Amino acid sequence: MLKIFTFWRSLASFRVRIGLNLKGLPSEQEFVSLVAGGHHRPEYTCINPQAVLPSLIDGEGTTPLVQSLAILEYLDETHPEPAFLPQDPRGRCRVRALAHIAAGDTHSLIVPRVRGYLAKHFGADEEIQAEWCRHWFAEGLKAIEAHLAQEKETGKFCHGDTPTLADISMVSAAVGYQLFKGTLEAYPTLAGIYGRCMEIEAFAIAHPLKQPGAPQAA
Amino acid sequence: MLKIFTFWRSLASFRVRIGLNLKGLPSEQEFVSLVAGGHHRPEYTCINPQAVLPSLIDGEGTTPLVQSLAILEYLDETHPEPAFLPQDPRGRCRVRALAHIAAGDTHSLIVPRVRGYLAKHFGADEEIQAEWCRHWFAEGLKAIEAHLAQEKETGKFCHGDTPTLADISMVSAAVGYQLFKGTLEAYPTLAGIYGRCMEIEAFAIAHPLKQPGAPQAA
Repeated sequence: MLKIFTFWRSLASFRVRIGLNLKGLPSEQEFVSLVAGGHHRPEYTCINPQAVLPSLIDGEGTTPLVQSLAILEYLDETHPEPAFLPQDPRGRCRVRALAHIAAGDTHSLIVPRVRGYLAKHFGADEEIQAEWCRHWFAEGLKAIEAHLAQEKETGKFCHGDTPTLADISMVSAAVGYQLFKGTLEAYPTLAGIYGRCMEIEAFAIAHPLKQPGAPQAA
Repeated sequence: MLKIFTFWRSLASFRVRIGLNLKGLPSEQEFVSLVAGGHHRPEYTCINPQAVLPSLIDGEGTTPLVQSLAILEYLDETHPEPAFLPQDPRGRCRVRALAHIAAGDTHSLIVPRVRGYLAKHFGADEEIQAEWCRHWFAEGLKAIEAHLAQEKETGKFCHGDTPTLADISMVSAAVGYQLFKGTLEAYPTLAGIYGRCMEIEAFAIAHPLKQPGAPQAA
């Protein structure tokens, strides 16, 4: 049985939850509270020395698997159906690029350790931190919207007519933006695809606010 | 002929340059100045709507390929030798994870648009921005060092005894840190691998300070 270290609010864990759901893979979940600092405790940093979520363990005594996009590619290589990537190298490149914009260039900027730095070194209070988060989510979503709107490979989903790694990552950024009170109106192509993704149970039930420990949705 | 949009200082372009060199692929280079704002001009944003470097064009009229790690996977899929990833899914996951720590969680935090935000909204001058950059490079290198030092898959390089995507990305972060006056002493495993990489011509000649337009090394 796969074991995942996760937390309701972690957008990277959200991505891996969607992936596990799409592949139909059951997993044991262990909750690591980003609020209570569980990710900095030695029993977790010996698994994930970067002290970030998620981590996946696939077999006792094996090196833990870390980093959401790497884990999703692992799940795709070990459980090929349904595929997270198209078959052709150009398509795979495009899908991975969209995923990197959402996960790397966007989500990496809004994580607790970065907001902590802003608070400590620039005196950024909660509202200033939220503005920072909204700014970078909006920048990322704007870039993804531009790719989706102008490139012929876009279909019902980010690439063609089935969900890929790009949709999983885009959805995590779109949900993150909304959790910080952003709206998707300025990104119509993306918003349409987001809506289609959230009609799929594998996406819907993975939503941060539907996880154990999450606050009630406003 | 592959056409790459690049700039001496761009660490993401550095990664793709190493990849092209390792594969022995010639390319036409077009320089886009991050200093003069060339990445924001319409003739570039129609290729790369995110306004970031690099972009790769492989064939007239095709959708431009963006995002360094996605491009490197594309090069690996279209030109398999020498391989940038090991054969086994666990190994591929580990290599991709290390690459994401260096490129996504680290490099994404120090790019010009982020430093610009710090200047505009927090009044961060050049030295405060440099401190920010050193902090996030150090965090990323510390995490990579911990993985490299404690995991049995580490060899002469980050994963086994040949360079992979992990080495390409780690080297870009290590060079970035040094450009901001950081040193690698605190990361002995990583520093050893970095030294072995830089003995390889494909890595050495791709160094930012060896590119056209770069200032003389101090």
